[in-house]
Amino acid sequence: MENCIFCKIVKEEIPATKLYEDSEALAFLDINPINIGHTLVIPKKHFKNILETPEDIMAHMMKIVKKVSHGLEALKPDGINIKMNNKEAAGQDVFHSHIHIMPRYKGDGFEPWHSKTKYKEGQKEEIAKKIISAL
Amino acid sequence: MENCIFCKIVKEEIPATKLYEDSEALAFLDINPINIGHTLVIPKKHFKNILETPEDIMAHMMKIVKKVSHGLEALKPDGINIKMNNKEAAGQDVFHSHIHIMPRYKGDGFEPWHSKTKYKEGQKEEIAKKIISAL
Repeated sequence: MENCIFCKIVKEEIPATKLYEDSEALAFLDINPINIGHTLVIPKKHFKNILETPEDIMAHMMKIVKKVSHGLEALKPDGINIKMNNKEAAGQDVFHSHIHIMPRYKGDGFEPWHSKTKYKEGQKEEIAKKIISAL
Repeated sequence: MENCIFCKIVKEEIPATKLYEDSEALAFLDINPINIGHTLVIPKKHFKNILETPEDIMAHMMKIVKKVSHGLEALKPDGINIKMNNKEAAGQDVFHSHIHIMPRYKGDGFEPWHSKTKYKEGQKEEIAKKIISAL
């Protein structure tokens, strides 16, 4: 897609430090890492987010995410976060599907989100019904 | 695995509000949601984290994550975050592989992590070499 920075990386019009590549997907270092080794996995074709990306491609991307997670062990992290932001309200900044793989270290200061909400009596079942009807 | 809360949910020894189930995996509502509809996808077999979970099961889980993401559209979120915490330093609290699917709304106050680090000249290539050698 024109003017998509990740499409330009796929086409090698913009340089990237590649870690893995096959016919469908690409893994490369994020240039604004939360920690050194922070990697992105993208499909080579342009899809905006998880809703648009075909399930086989999402599954393939996850295999690469696992592969990269093992590769990151070379950096001896204490943990690894996998994250995918879909749409602007979820923090997506490049609108070409991508999965973050972030090595984590004890005391590195990145905090998980904590629950601020509770289900009322019967609400879980009602919400589940709505979601299931749209699966 | 004994004393694993997610294994107990799989065996129906503990109740959960299930959204989807097949022979390999299960999706159910997180009881401490960051927003209503926050869902977890787990493998039925006990694996600690992404490093231990076989790649075919990770890929299968990602297909369910996509399915649930479509289901969550029923709640009209503005975005969706997918997240997997691996090991305590990455915020993992239950040591049975699980992927979070979190509906997001504009102004809900959950902030993405921002980069606090930069690569020095030549460091990206050096780090990539280390990771690639461990892929």
